[in-house]
Amino acid sequence: MTMRPPAEAGDSLQDVDTPALVVDLDSLERNLDRMARAVADTGARLRPHAKSHKCPEIALKQIAAGAIGVCCQKVSEAEAMAEGGIDNILVSNEVVGRPKLDRLAALSRKAWIAVCADDAGNVDALEAAAGRADTVLNVLVEIDVGAGRCGVAPGEPAVVLAKRIAGHSRLRFGGLQAYHGRAQHIRAHDERRRAVEGAAELTRQTVALLAEGGLGCGIVGGAGTGTYAFEAMSGVYNELQPGSYIFMDGDYGRNLGADGAPFDEFEQSLFVYATVMSRPAPDRALVDAGLKAFAVDSGLPAVHGFADVECVGASDEHGLLAIKGNGDGFGVGDKVRLVPGHCDPTVNLYDWLVGVRRGAVECLWPVTARGAVL
Amino acid sequence: MTMRPPAEAGDSLQDVDTPALVVDLDSLERNLDRMARAVADTGARLRPHAKSHKCPEIALKQIAAGAIGVCCQKVSEAEAMAEGGIDNILVSNEVVGRPKLDRLAALSRKAWIAVCADDAGNVDALEAAAGRADTVLNVLVEIDVGAGRCGVAPGEPAVVLAKRIAGHSRLRFGGLQAYHGRAQHIRAHDERRRAVEGAAELTRQTVALLAEGGLGCGIVGGAGTGTYAFEAMSGVYNELQPGSYIFMDGDYGRNLGADGAPFDEFEQSLFVYATVMSRPAPDRALVDAGLKAFAVDSGLPAVHGFADVECVGASDEHGLLAIKGNGDGFGVGDKVRLVPGHCDPTVNLYDWLVGVRRGAVECLWPVTARGAVL
Repeated sequence: MTMRPPAEAGDSLQDVDTPALVVDLDSLERNLDRMARAVADTGARLRPHAKSHKCPEIALKQIAAGAIGVCCQKVSEAEAMAEGGIDNILVSNEVVGRPKLDRLAALSRKAWIAVCADDAGNVDALEAAAGRADTVLNVLVEIDVGAGRCGVAPGEPAVVLAKRIAGHSRLRFGGLQAYHGRAQHIRAHDERRRAVEGAAELTRQTVALLAEGGLGCGIVGGAGTGTYAFEAMSGVYNELQPGSYIFMDGDYGRNLGADGAPFDEFEQSLFVYATVMSRPAPDRALVDAGLKAFAVDSGLPAVHGFADVECVGASDEHGLLAIKGNGDGFGVGDKVRLVPGHCDPTVNLYDWLVGVRRGAVECLWPVTARGAVL
Repeated sequence: MTMRPPAEAGDSLQDVDTPALVVDLDSLERNLDRMARAVADTGARLRPHAKSHKCPEIALKQIAAGAIGVCCQKVSEAEAMAEGGIDNILVSNEVVGRPKLDRLAALSRKAWIAVCADDAGNVDALEAAAGRADTVLNVLVEIDVGAGRCGVAPGEPAVVLAKRIAGHSRLRFGGLQAYHGRAQHIRAHDERRRAVEGAAELTRQTVALLAEGGLGCGIVGGAGTGTYAFEAMSGVYNELQPGSYIFMDGDYGRNLGADGAPFDEFEQSLFVYATVMSRPAPDRALVDAGLKAFAVDSGLPAVHGFADVECVGASDEHGLLAIKGNGDGFGVGDKVRLVPGHCDPTVNLYDWLVGVRRGAVECLWPVTARGAVL
């Protein structure tokens, strides 16, 4: 059920069939390099999140640029990464239910694996799974540092859970997962910084309390594309987990930098390539990409390079463009690049990433973990 | 890159791994039967839309229940249906670009194929593709009857395009596509009916004008789950194209019937099955299904069977539930059924449909056209 690739290496961009997920390789490589340099100065390790790209080829490039491994959110994602040659994986999420726990334990015999927990019963289930697989699992305690999602409270509750982990024979206490998801898209730079400073303080206190109890944190992990510089400066986080920086998207593009201008540290490298399939009126065009070609949870896509053309609607297989200017470039058969509002769930819709450099297709990368929800 | 199935036939529902797309087979079969009976009285033919299920097994059930074939939106969807044994397919959409046109023409040598057009240049491109494949293509003129999407204006512009089709040696004029997409989710019954009456009147005038020109309409197609009864009564539509009726979703569930009560002609048969993966507070639970497990373009999912539990947020791999009641049934490891806001783009996220009857897994159906965007 893998779909045919929309292009072959050597094709011109113009010949890529649509809708297709296109990545500008020059921009991608500059983004990889910029993050590597930004983190290199800080002493923190880079462990990018593979949930954004789901593509071992890109993970290997991240590791070649200095990353120590990757994060995944799902066991099936971790399996795809391990199969693709990644040998150091943190599942930065809770894993619940015997089938998944057994797969996770089996995977830990092939790669270095760590996982998060926020529940005593789940810790005991991890121990049981590790026993069935005759392996050892590294377990981090997830603490809620402001995201309001998973995680025990910082401080004493985290110590109680860490001790439970350390008390099991098949588990190793691996540290803390302290990701502040909500902070990533706070628009104003200083407000974003303050949110992470608050998270870092809670994390610092918890690390200290664990140390008093004789529990060292191998990993103190968190951070995303919107805040990684703040966690890096904190002195407490030692692993940074940004994912979107390689691609960027409309939502991250709306964040502001320290100077109040749009956040432009990384380049938009990811596009949904689409064809105008109907031009029923001078002020209206339809493209062949809709809700099955881009995610809309963070808004409709932008039309790259056309300030006077706006995507104003989407149905399953149609994108509705409102044309305010002369409409040149929007005849039936013309192709356009859309900037998705949110890269991660957009990538998850595709089997292939089309790597393009200066107008020519250079590579087709399988999105191996596309649909890896289990 | 097909993901593992989340269950095996014979498993109990409780053992299905999550997130998974689960369909209640009793409800699905009652929906199939209700639509078949509702249409049987009208003289119109039923051509359900396969974009909702993307699954040949379901298409074959629809045909066994009296449908004459299916609609698809994409050539790759039509290919998957033809491969699955469906031999009568209307691509109820424009197809643009030589690769797709050549695939469409090739397909027409294996199955009865029709396609829509709203552009003279596209009609000429269809003729050229049919010539290259040494085949004949059936082409419908799409008219805009109020949807504001694709389509030429009803009346004379449709006649001009129909004549162009009929004037080509490799094309057969097949009729009109007159789908009023916007009408499907008008909540009030009478307002929905009036919208379709307006569309039917424009369609009727166009059919008459075509007849004056000697052009008969084999197909006059349109209608969806929200309005099919009105098109069926119109006397002008002869093919009905509902898709969602087999599954239903949160958005259709908000439509109102003639009595002002929620539209309940069809049953909710489709669910995203999810596991509680974290229960960090009495009023909060996280499930393992997020933006990669359900579409949110028509709102967040409902939690089936729990009036006092609401899904209030979603991130890539998490669904955030607010618990107002006692929270029983929402411990770590408990499983729940979510009702997606929009069935079509939700189904498109999965490789497998898990068919369940009275608590046991009866079948695993591949979503063959998952990701079929080309």
